[in-house]
Amino acid sequence: MTLLGRVDREQVHGPRDHEPQDLRTLQIELPQPSKPGANYVPFVRTGNLVFLTGQLSQWNGERRFIGKLGREFGIAEGQQAARLCALNLIAQLRAALDGDLDRVVRCVRVAGFVNSEPTFLSHSQVINGASDLFVEVFGEAGRHSRMAVGVSALPYDVAVEVEAVFEVR
Amino acid sequence: MTLLGRVDREQVHGPRDHEPQDLRTLQIELPQPSKPGANYVPFVRTGNLVFLTGQLSQWNGERRFIGKLGREFGIAEGQQAARLCALNLIAQLRAALDGDLDRVVRCVRVAGFVNSEPTFLSHSQVINGASDLFVEVFGEAGRHSRMAVGVSALPYDVAVEVEAVFEVR
Amino acid sequence: MTLLGRVDREQVHGPRDHEPQDLRTLQIELPQPSKPGANYVPFVRTGNLVFLTGQLSQWNGERRFIGKLGREFGIAEGQQAARLCALNLIAQLRAALDGDLDRVVRCVRVAGFVNSEPTFLSHSQVINGASDLFVEVFGEAGRHSRMAVGVSALPYDVAVEVEAVFEVR
Repeated sequence: MTLLGRVDREQVHGPRDHEPQDLRTLQIELPQPSKPGANYVPFVRTGNLVFLTGQLSQWNGERRFIGKLGREFGIAEGQQAARLCALNLIAQLRAALDGDLDRVVRCVRVAGFVNSEPTFLSHSQVINGASDLFVEVFGEAGRHSRMAVGVSALPYDVAVEVEAVFEVR
Repeated sequence: MTLLGRVDREQVHGPRDHEPQDLRTLQIELPQPSKPGANYVPFVRTGNLVFLTGQLSQWNGERRFIGKLGREFGIAEGQQAARLCALNLIAQLRAALDGDLDRVVRCVRVAGFVNSEPTFLSHSQVINGASDLFVEVFGEAGRHSRMAVGVSALPYDVAVEVEAVFEVR
Repeated sequence: MTLLGRVDREQVHGPRDHEPQDLRTLQIELPQPSKPGANYVPFVRTGNLVFLTGQLSQWNGERRFIGKLGREFGIAEGQQAARLCALNLIAQLRAALDGDLDRVVRCVRVAGFVNSEPTFLSHSQVINGASDLFVEVFGEAGRHSRMAVGVSALPYDVAVEVEAVFEVR
């Protein structure tokens, strides 16, 4: 199937279920994917899986949402922070796929870490900010297995960190 | 091999090492697998791996063991909570395999998150409640790689969350 | 390719990029890989992936760096603790590969959990202690996707726990 061009593929298989929406149509802008400053990389592909490095809530390298859920931030702001993490994950994924997000088969796993007070209990709702974006961009193929927990601290005191695994072609 | 019925398979390969025990024989009852209320799914299969969404300590959707290890709960209760998470994981896995747990090749990875006071240090013993169940049900095939950590909070203040990856046929 | 000896392999493919350095040349000594005392195992291989159990900062089973970052320990000590975790991961990986680390294709994912005060924010720098070792031993093949978070407690109050996935041949 990798030998078929896109037109041929659609002739053979009909329209694909998992066609990602054009990011421009969705009016979604991706940040510049950040480059790690240490001995790790933003993504590793092994077989059909791409493991993405955990992304912080930042835009073009400038950290946003500095502080804790249940203290500085409420659920709505946490969701924005999680969405920002997911935008960075998609930016890294696009780089991993040489710019072609059509090669995404599906989102496999999302792990969300919420920088939160022990009294804050809405980690699931916060990480929905990331989950919703994946479905907005990839449709049904954006649905994933997931875990969400609260942690006592995140690097640079950002509010949210999200890690993900995608299956690609 | 997927074309062979069970009898034929045993004739060809001999009795399988990893035959899961019949849950009824083990007197193990599984909860109803919960349906996520957001943009994620309980499991994703990619290749021969099934990634399962992190399960909370609950029974048929009713949360149990609300509170922290080292405060409301001791090790024994934490183990029951972890076992409950594992029962939910098996329930989701059974749904992923169309009801046929015989298709489990092995448990690959278990990640245990314990809602605990900073002074509580027995996370490994707590997560044994999940590990023991996997071996009870799947025998040697239930042994897995594992990580266990303490976190400052979990969704809805449940005591334990456990995530898992299985290899299936 | 598995039928080829090392010399033949180099004749066919040229010198490999990812040849791990000889540990003796690097003057790196590995600890004895620990044996889990419960119903889990140090590693699981599935397909070409090896999932390694999260390793604590210890040497030959004797726990080291007991305490929290931001209280008992600073960044430099945390990096030594993370390096110790990584040495244990490599020891387990070597056991998984029957002693032959040449069979490592690459490090896929590293997850670092730092036992830290809520005020400590340098988790990335601490986990560099593990990342740097993987690159020291495996060269470019040691670079990995990564996540790093702070947690309120780790088993036995060790300072760092690191989990990893490798691709092998």
